[in-house]
Amino acid sequence: MIKVGIVGGTGYTGVELLRLLAGHPEAELRVITSRSEAGSAVSEMFPNLRGHVDLAFSAPDPAVLRKCDLVFFATPNGTAMTMARELLEAGVRVIDLAADFRLKDAALWEQWYGMRHACPELLAEAVYGLPEMNREALRNARLVANPGCYPTAVTLGFLPLVEAGVVDDKHLIADAKSGVSGGGRKTEIGYLLAEASENMKAYGVAGHRHLPEIRQNLMRIAGRAAVGLTFVPHLTPMIRGIHATLYAGLCKEVDLQALFVGRYQGEPFVDVLPAGSHPETRTVRGGNMCRIAVHRPAGDTVVVLSVIDNLVKGAAGQAVQNMNILFGLEETMGLRGIPLLP
Amino acid sequence: MIKVGIVGGTGYTGVELLRLLAGHPEAELRVITSRSEAGSAVSEMFPNLRGHVDLAFSAPDPAVLRKCDLVFFATPNGTAMTMARELLEAGVRVIDLAADFRLKDAALWEQWYGMRHACPELLAEAVYGLPEMNREALRNARLVANPGCYPTAVTLGFLPLVEAGVVDDKHLIADAKSGVSGGGRKTEIGYLLAEASENMKAYGVAGHRHLPEIRQNLMRIAGRAAVGLTFVPHLTPMIRGIHATLYAGLCKEVDLQALFVGRYQGEPFVDVLPAGSHPETRTVRGGNMCRIAVHRPAGDTVVVLSVIDNLVKGAAGQAVQNMNILFGLEETMGLRGIPLLP
Amino acid sequence: MIKVGIVGGTGYTGVELLRLLAGHPEAELRVITSRSEAGSAVSEMFPNLRGHVDLAFSAPDPAVLRKCDLVFFATPNGTAMTMARELLEAGVRVIDLAADFRLKDAALWEQWYGMRHACPELLAEAVYGLPEMNREALRNARLVANPGCYPTAVTLGFLPLVEAGVVDDKHLIADAKSGVSGGGRKTEIGYLLAEASENMKAYGVAGHRHLPEIRQNLMRIAGRAAVGLTFVPHLTPMIRGIHATLYAGLCKEVDLQALFVGRYQGEPFVDVLPAGSHPETRTVRGGNMCRIAVHRPAGDTVVVLSVIDNLVKGAAGQAVQNMNILFGLEETMGLRGIPLLP
Amino acid sequence: MIKVGIVGGTGYTGVELLRLLAGHPEAELRVITSRSEAGSAVSEMFPNLRGHVDLAFSAPDPAVLRKCDLVFFATPNGTAMTMARELLEAGVRVIDLAADFRLKDAALWEQWYGMRHACPELLAEAVYGLPEMNREALRNARLVANPGCYPTAVTLGFLPLVEAGVVDDKHLIADAKSGVSGGGRKTEIGYLLAEASENMKAYGVAGHRHLPEIRQNLMRIAGRAAVGLTFVPHLTPMIRGIHATLYAGLCKEVDLQALFVGRYQGEPFVDVLPAGSHPETRTVRGGNMCRIAVHRPAGDTVVVLSVIDNLVKGAAGQAVQNMNILFGLEETMGLRGIPLLP
Repeated sequence: MIKVGIVGGTGYTGVELLRLLAGHPEAELRVITSRSEAGSAVSEMFPNLRGHVDLAFSAPDPAVLRKCDLVFFATPNGTAMTMARELLEAGVRVIDLAADFRLKDAALWEQWYGMRHACPELLAEAVYGLPEMNREALRNARLVANPGCYPTAVTLGFLPLVEAGVVDDKHLIADAKSGVSGGGRKTEIGYLLAEASENMKAYGVAGHRHLPEIRQNLMRIAGRAAVGLTFVPHLTPMIRGIHATLYAGLCKEVDLQALFVGRYQGEPFVDVLPAGSHPETRTVRGGNMCRIAVHRPAGDTVVVLSVIDNLVKGAAGQAVQNMNILFGLEETMGLRGIPLLP
Repeated sequence: MIKVGIVGGTGYTGVELLRLLAGHPEAELRVITSRSEAGSAVSEMFPNLRGHVDLAFSAPDPAVLRKCDLVFFATPNGTAMTMARELLEAGVRVIDLAADFRLKDAALWEQWYGMRHACPELLAEAVYGLPEMNREALRNARLVANPGCYPTAVTLGFLPLVEAGVVDDKHLIADAKSGVSGGGRKTEIGYLLAEASENMKAYGVAGHRHLPEIRQNLMRIAGRAAVGLTFVPHLTPMIRGIHATLYAGLCKEVDLQALFVGRYQGEPFVDVLPAGSHPETRTVRGGNMCRIAVHRPAGDTVVVLSVIDNLVKGAAGQAVQNMNILFGLEETMGLRGIPLLP
Repeated sequence: MIKVGIVGGTGYTGVELLRLLAGHPEAELRVITSRSEAGSAVSEMFPNLRGHVDLAFSAPDPAVLRKCDLVFFATPNGTAMTMARELLEAGVRVIDLAADFRLKDAALWEQWYGMRHACPELLAEAVYGLPEMNREALRNARLVANPGCYPTAVTLGFLPLVEAGVVDDKHLIADAKSGVSGGGRKTEIGYLLAEASENMKAYGVAGHRHLPEIRQNLMRIAGRAAVGLTFVPHLTPMIRGIHATLYAGLCKEVDLQALFVGRYQGEPFVDVLPAGSHPETRTVRGGNMCRIAVHRPAGDTVVVLSVIDNLVKGAAGQAVQNMNILFGLEETMGLRGIPLLP
Repeated sequence: MIKVGIVGGTGYTGVELLRLLAGHPEAELRVITSRSEAGSAVSEMFPNLRGHVDLAFSAPDPAVLRKCDLVFFATPNGTAMTMARELLEAGVRVIDLAADFRLKDAALWEQWYGMRHACPELLAEAVYGLPEMNREALRNARLVANPGCYPTAVTLGFLPLVEAGVVDDKHLIADAKSGVSGGGRKTEIGYLLAEASENMKAYGVAGHRHLPEIRQNLMRIAGRAAVGLTFVPHLTPMIRGIHATLYAGLCKEVDLQALFVGRYQGEPFVDVLPAGSHPETRTVRGGNMCRIAVHRPAGDTVVVLSVIDNLVKGAAGQAVQNMNILFGLEETMGLRGIPLLP
C-alpha cells in the first residue's frame, strides 16, 4: 500500500482526489491537511464521502508528511514550491496539482503567476505529468507537475498533428469551453449560479496562464520554438467538463483519422472516436478519459474536438494515473469508473 | 457469475443498470434487448460505456433470455407482465424496474395504469423490492417489483414514524421534487431543456401513479388501511435527484433522532444525518444511498428530509441491491461507488 | 415626474429596480448610491443597462437624497433604519426593500435579525407593502416595508383561505422552493454554480427570518394570534422564481376555485389559474405577477400552488407597484412587461 | 396600426414574436395560425401571455391573411415559399423567419434544405433582413428573408473586418455556441434537459445550413466569391443566447477598436464594447442587441466576440426591427425592453 498524504484538500480537485483514492486498492490515505478546516471531518465538508473517508483535516505537519510515500498538493499556486524540496529530500515523492512546476522557465512562470518562484532549481527535474507525452520520464520521477485542465485537453488534441508536422503550427487556434468547477471552489461573484448560469462568455482573451503551458507543450512536441497559438477560454454554464475545439491549417496531406488512431493506439485514457463523431463532455463526466474526434469540413482547415472532465483527466484523475506510473502499478488502477450519464 | 439479461435498455434506468452491472464482479451481462435499436452497439447510444460494454442491442428472443439466471426489465409499464410468467417457469428470476408488479391489487393497478393486467395471478408472489422493508422476503423471491423512485424516497422517510405509530398517519404530506431524468428518456415537450430549465412546477396534484404505491407501503407498515396521504410531485431543473420533504403531525412524544438512527442501524444504504442537517441531492448523485434528516421545527409537526438519486437508489441501484440479495451476495457488491460531487 | 433615489443598488434587487425604473414613464432616476462602487458607471457592473441607465454610483449623500420625492433602499438589512427618519422628516417617502420595517414587534425583529433596531418608533407607522392586503393604507403611506419574497408568495396563496376562515390555521404548511437569486448577489460557497446547480436542498428548517413575517401576515388576516405555520424553504437550481406549495386542512366546505377567483377579482397582479392548473415559475419570469392554482386532491387537505418571480413581485416589481400607489399613478404603470418564456 | 398576421406560432420564435408584438404600439395582431392547435387559446400554450394576448390559434385561411398589412412566417422551412406569392399579390408584405428566402441561389438552397424550392423566382426580390447591412433595400421591401440566428451573430462580428478588407477572408473561423432554444420547440432526444444540461458538444461540423448563408453574406460584403469559412456550432446548456467567437488573420494594420466603433456608430442594436471587454450572452437576454468586442491577443490573429439573444436579435426581434423599417416607423419601436439580468 502506498502511504499517501494530501496537502490542501478543501477544493474541487481535493474532493475528487479523495473520491478516487478512497476507491483505489493500493493507496492508503494517511493525512489530509487544511489550515482553515483543521479538526473538522472531511465528510462534513463533502458529505458524498460519508462512509468512505473517515479522516479529519489536520494542520500541515512536516513530520507527518515525511512519513508518506507520496504527497499530492491540491493547493493554490505557490504552496507546493515552498514545501517540495524538504519532502523530496526525505524521500517522499510529490505530485503537484497546481502550477508551481509546470513551466520550465522560472522567469516566464514569475511573469504569469505574479510571484517569485521559491525553488527554481527544481524546475528542470520536475516531470510534466501528461503520460501520453511523457510516460517514460514519469516512471522514475520524484516530482511531477500535474498538467492544467485546458492544457490537457488542448495538448492531446493537437499532439498528433504537431508531432507529425502536418499543420501550420504558427497559427494554431484553441477555442476552449469549460465548466465552472475549473475556476475552483472559491467565492467570486462571477461563479455564482445567478451569474454563470444561462450565460456564456469568453474570458482572459488577452492572456490566460494556461497559454504559456500549452505553448511549452506544443514547442516540445514540435521540436522548435516558433509555435504560435491563439487560446480563448470560455466559461460555460455547467459544473464539469472541458470541450476544446481546435483549428489548424493543414500543410501536408495525411489521413487524419489514421494519424489519430495510430498515435493513441494502446493509450488507456485517450479514445479516438469514429470519423464524423462529435464527442460530448458528459460522456467523460467523472471518468479519466479524453475523447477526441478529428474533422476536415472543407478546405485545408483541420478541426479537432477534444473533451475531458476537467476535475478528472484534467486534474485528480491524471494525478492518480501519474501515481500509478510512479509506483509501477497498472496505469488504470482505481480509474476504471464509468462516466455518469445522464 | 450470474448470467444477466436486460429487456429494454435504451432509457435512463437502462444505461444506469448497464453502468452498474459492467462494474459488478459477479454479474455477466449476456444480452440486452431493444426492438428499435436491434443491431446497434450499446456504446453508440451511450458513449460513456465505450470500452466497458461491448454488447449490441438485439431483438428480444425468449430462447436467449431463458438461458439467463436473471432478467431485468427496464421497459415501459406493461411489458414485463407479458413475459414474466414464461421466464419464471424456465427458472429465470425476474426484477421488473417498471410498475407492473408493484401494486398488490390488480383492479387498483388497472385503474391507475389504464390497461388490463396480463398476469394478476403473479401479483401475490411478487416481492416489493425495498430491502429496508422486505429483506427477508427478497432472499427467496423469484419475481421482484423494483420500487418507484418517489416511493423509495418517501417510504424510507416515513417508515420509522409510521412503524412506531408516533404520527397521525391519516394526514401525511409528501412534497417531492425530482430531477427530469425521472420522466425517462422520452421526447415530451415539457422535458426539453428550453422548457424545464430555469423553471419549477408541480404536476399531477390530482393524482400520480406513485400515490397508490406509497399508500400501499405505508398501510403495510402501519398495519392498517386508513392511511391518508397527500402527495405533490414537482419537476426540478436538474438531471438527477429526488428531494422528498415530508410532513406529519406528531401524536406521541418520542426522540425522533434516536428513532431514525435506531431503525436504520446497519442499513448499508440509508444514512441518517446528524440532527439539524439538510441533506442535498448532489451528495447521493450516482450512489445507491438514501440520506435522511429529521426535524421538529416547532409545535407538533415533524419534517423529514429524504434524498436519493432517482436513477440509482430510485431504480437501477436498488435493482442491483435486490439482485445481490436474491443471489446471496454481499448486499453492497458493485454498489460502493462514491457519489460525484461537485 | 417622481424624483427617485436608490440607496444600495449593487445587488439583484438593485439591478431589477433599475431595469423597471428605467422603463417607467413617471420615474426619474436621480441618484443611486454605493459606497464600494462610488464613481463607477452602473452599466459597467450591469451591462444589460448599457444605453438605458447612464448614472454612476455615488457615495450616499443625505443632501442629495433629501431632494428626492422617493428613496428606495435596496440595502442589506439594518441600513434603512439608520437613514429613514431623516428622510421622512425632509418629506421624502421611503420604500425599504430590506426587512427593517417588516415586523411590527421590535423585540421579535431584534431576535430574528440579531441587531438592535435603530428606530422602533417608526414600526407602527410603516405600512407593509403587500397591496392585495393593504392597498388603502398604502395610498397615504410615508414609509413602506416592502415584503420579503417568500412572504409574498406564501401570503397571497394562503390569504383567501385564512381570510374566509375555512382552514385549520393552526397547522398550516408552506413548502417553498426558491431560485438562488433570492440569496442575493453575495459570495457564499453554497451559491456557486458548482455547488447549487444539479442540486436540491432544504435549508433553515429550524427557523428562517421569513417565518415571523409570514406568521404576522397570517395572524393579521385571521384576526387572531394563534396561527401555526411550518415553513420549509428550499434552494432550487435556477436563477429566478419561487414556487410555494401550501397545505392546509379544510374545516369548512367551500367552493375553493370560486373563493380564490372572487378574492382576487380585479387584482392586476394576481392571476388565479383555471381549476386543475399547475403554475410554472417561468410564466412569471421578469413579470410582476403571482399565479395561483388551488387543488383539493382527496380528503380534506387543500393544496395551493403559488408562483412569483422573487426579484419582481417578490422585490423590485412590488416596490414599483407600491410607488405607483403612493403617488396616485395607475398601479400597473411600468409593470406591463411580459414574462420571458422560454 | 399595422394589421399583423402570424403563420405558425407554436414555436419559440412564435411566442417571442407574440411577446414583442403585444407590446408594440403600432402593431395590431389580427390572426395567428396553427393547424394543430386551431381553436385553443394562445395563452394556454404560452401562459406568460395571459392577460396580454387574447387570440386563439386558427387554421390558416388565405382570406383572413390577405386582409393583413403584414404576415410573419414563424413556420418550419418550406412553408412560407408555398404561400408568399399569393400574399404578395394581394398587397400583403411578408417577413419569413424561416430559411425559405435566405439564399439567392435556388440550387444551393435545394441542396442544403433537401427540398424543391416552390418559388425560386422570388429569391431575387427577397431582401435579406439584416438592417446593419441592408437597411436601404429594406425600406421598400415586400418580402424579407429574416436572417438565421448564427448568421446574425457571425455576420455582424465579421462585417467591419471583411468590409474594410483587413483580414484574410479565405481562412475565416467562426466558433459559435448556442443555447438550446435555437433548435426550436421540438421533441428531439438531444434537446431534453437530461441530455443537453451539464453537457457541451459541437455538432454539424461537416456542414450546417447556416454555413452557406453566412458565406453568402461575407461574399457580398467582401465583394467577391472566394471567401473561405470554417463554421463550428456548439450546443450549450442554456436556453437563450449565442456567443460567436470569430478568428481571422490580419493582413493589414488597422486600429481595430476604431474600425468597429466607426462602422456601428448610430446603429441602435449593435453595441461595440470598450477595448478589452468580454460580452456575456446574459447581457442581451430578452433584448434586441448585439454586443461585440474585438481583441488582438498577440500576433496577427484578430478575435471578435459577438453575442445576441438568438430568439430576439437572432429571430423575432430582428423581424420586428424589419417591420419597423418596412413601415417607416422608428426602428427601435417596441424593442426598447431591457435585457433581463440576472
